[in-house]
Amino acid sequence: MESVFQQNDNRTELSDVGEFALIEKLTAELQVINKSTIKAVGDDAAVIQNGDMQTLVSVDLLVEGVHFDLMYTPLKHLGYKAAVVNFSDIAAMNGKPMQIVIGLAVSNRFSLEALEELYSGIRLACEQYGVDLVGGDTTSSMSGLFISVTVIGQALPQDICYRHGAAENDLLCVSGDLGAAYMGLMLLEREKAVYKADPSMQPDLDGNDYVLSRQLKPEARFDVLEELKKAGVKPSSMIDISDGLASEIIHLCKASNLGCRIYETKIPIDPATIRLAEEFRLVPSIPALNGGEDYELLFTISPSDFEKIRNIESVSVIGHMTTNRGETVMITIDDRLIPLKAQGWDGLRNNNKQD
Amino acid sequence: MESVFQQNDNRTELSDVGEFALIEKLTAELQVINKSTIKAVGDDAAVIQNGDMQTLVSVDLLVEGVHFDLMYTPLKHLGYKAAVVNFSDIAAMNGKPMQIVIGLAVSNRFSLEALEELYSGIRLACEQYGVDLVGGDTTSSMSGLFISVTVIGQALPQDICYRHGAAENDLLCVSGDLGAAYMGLMLLEREKAVYKADPSMQPDLDGNDYVLSRQLKPEARFDVLEELKKAGVKPSSMIDISDGLASEIIHLCKASNLGCRIYETKIPIDPATIRLAEEFRLVPSIPALNGGEDYELLFTISPSDFEKIRNIESVSVIGHMTTNRGETVMITIDDRLIPLKAQGWDGLRNNNKQD
Repeated sequence: MESVFQQNDNRTELSDVGEFALIEKLTAELQVINKSTIKAVGDDAAVIQNGDMQTLVSVDLLVEGVHFDLMYTPLKHLGYKAAVVNFSDIAAMNGKPMQIVIGLAVSNRFSLEALEELYSGIRLACEQYGVDLVGGDTTSSMSGLFISVTVIGQALPQDICYRHGAAENDLLCVSGDLGAAYMGLMLLEREKAVYKADPSMQPDLDGNDYVLSRQLKPEARFDVLEELKKAGVKPSSMIDISDGLASEIIHLCKASNLGCRIYETKIPIDPATIRLAEEFRLVPSIPALNGGEDYELLFTISPSDFEKIRNIESVSVIGHMTTNRGETVMITIDDRLIPLKAQGWDGLRNNNKQD
Repeated sequence: MESVFQQNDNRTELSDVGEFALIEKLTAELQVINKSTIKAVGDDAAVIQNGDMQTLVSVDLLVEGVHFDLMYTPLKHLGYKAAVVNFSDIAAMNGKPMQIVIGLAVSNRFSLEALEELYSGIRLACEQYGVDLVGGDTTSSMSGLFISVTVIGQALPQDICYRHGAAENDLLCVSGDLGAAYMGLMLLEREKAVYKADPSMQPDLDGNDYVLSRQLKPEARFDVLEELKKAGVKPSSMIDISDGLASEIIHLCKASNLGCRIYETKIPIDPATIRLAEEFRLVPSIPALNGGEDYELLFTISPSDFEKIRNIESVSVIGHMTTNRGETVMITIDDRLIPLKAQGWDGLRNNNKQD
């Protein structure tokens, strides 16, 4: 038994480490014991051998005050989103989500009715995506709401897309459009500030349904996977865009040991996102590159597959992979070459509050 | 899009519902979609078909201030315990834990070194039990430490023990001894109070290594499963004792649609636990029945298997199942018949603090 009532002397602040470096540090010494463990830490989901199929497992935590603000997030939407962002991790592996388990820590501030709202959103997401809620743990917290969602998916081994599969000259593609979820968040934060200053003010959200739904009710892009399959294309590598395009591109390049070039003019951005970005005096590519929470897919395909995907409306080619490892760059609208930086959601840096 | 900036009018306090009733309410309407979902909510783990094997999945949350107090819980022990209590859920299904994923929400109060300590405990548990840590999510919290552990296990379908399998006259058995973990907690709480009153006082933990190790470093009883297997006995039903014997007996009886009688004199309690209980002026069976966190196994066997288990030292027969559904009773030392009550860990009631 080690001694109790004592503290560690060394101290490195988490804010000096950053989320990705932290995970690397904590999992550096891990060695795989079981033969069934095909892929441990380092992709959108872990991969486990199970007979002829492979099982995919991924977990996401959503923390009140860090990932969501209940002032403008209806609990039903929160439940839906908590489930869907996990389904998206399975989509990023080209798998099918099958089951989820939910861990919930709630303070006494929450009523039974509030949790029923949250669960109704989780259930709705499960129905829409054909997933079973199979278990959970509900406990109290000293303050705030914590949601942990673990998703179990499956895929045939040959169908799984890892982050590390990209090859030189592969085309870099994204689904849908980017930056809308972040502009939705900006809008909600602005109206919250107005409301706090004067509670008689009604929030002005008119005409912004698209960006709001992207923030409050994201979807996982299994429809895009279906279209790729129909077209006979299997991505050589894939990741979902949860932390912003720039951050995910860097993950993909690092895992595949390649560099890339993307073109600012090719990044798909919805007119509603552009309009709102301009209202907030932001270059529209900024929320797309660094905003996060779009839950679109970023993937690479062989150049020989280009003809097969060029008519898929929901897929845009934004650049290509290069052998120039470490060079992940964007050609801007005015033809400058700038390095991409991972400035996405870094919860450990964003939160400067001490408790 | 539903409207934002609004609140639900009805309000039922969670403290009026209780943890088990809450889970029942939240999961009442669930319908299984996927054929591979064999058992959803309602046992120690969910069961998923995967080829010839079945996959077991369970999640547990550990919340600072509710499940642990960092004043007397070394972070390495906390990591070890967080992993082991999940392995114990798989033991309770008679399965083998294979992989875990960890969700961690930490405030800036924690340093990199602190998280490395926590992870070293998780890694140690994984090594000891032959489990791979395959993934995780690390994020910030506004205050405190939240740990979510999801474990993936496996078993042959015919080996799995559910809660609902007990039959009339089956013998009710427990592994090891009970109540020690709770007395360890009482001791740590007492010394904490002394230390807070006068920080120059050194904690007096001498001679209590056993109860302290039961609280701070519990183990999952795969050794007992191994002995049962060697003896050729498969439990007809099983559950692990995380919330206290009384609460788990009620779960088992309810799931099996039976009643039971247990004998106070038969409950295995270590002499160190008895001594400390008497020091705290508690009847020793109270921590055993209601203390929780022992992570021993509670299971039933056919009376015809009694001869096979009678020489297994780590197994005690404490009573038997009856057809008297709803009657879960104990015959006390002084021959009274008293109903068992689930007074275990109910985080949602224990925590009266509002945030």
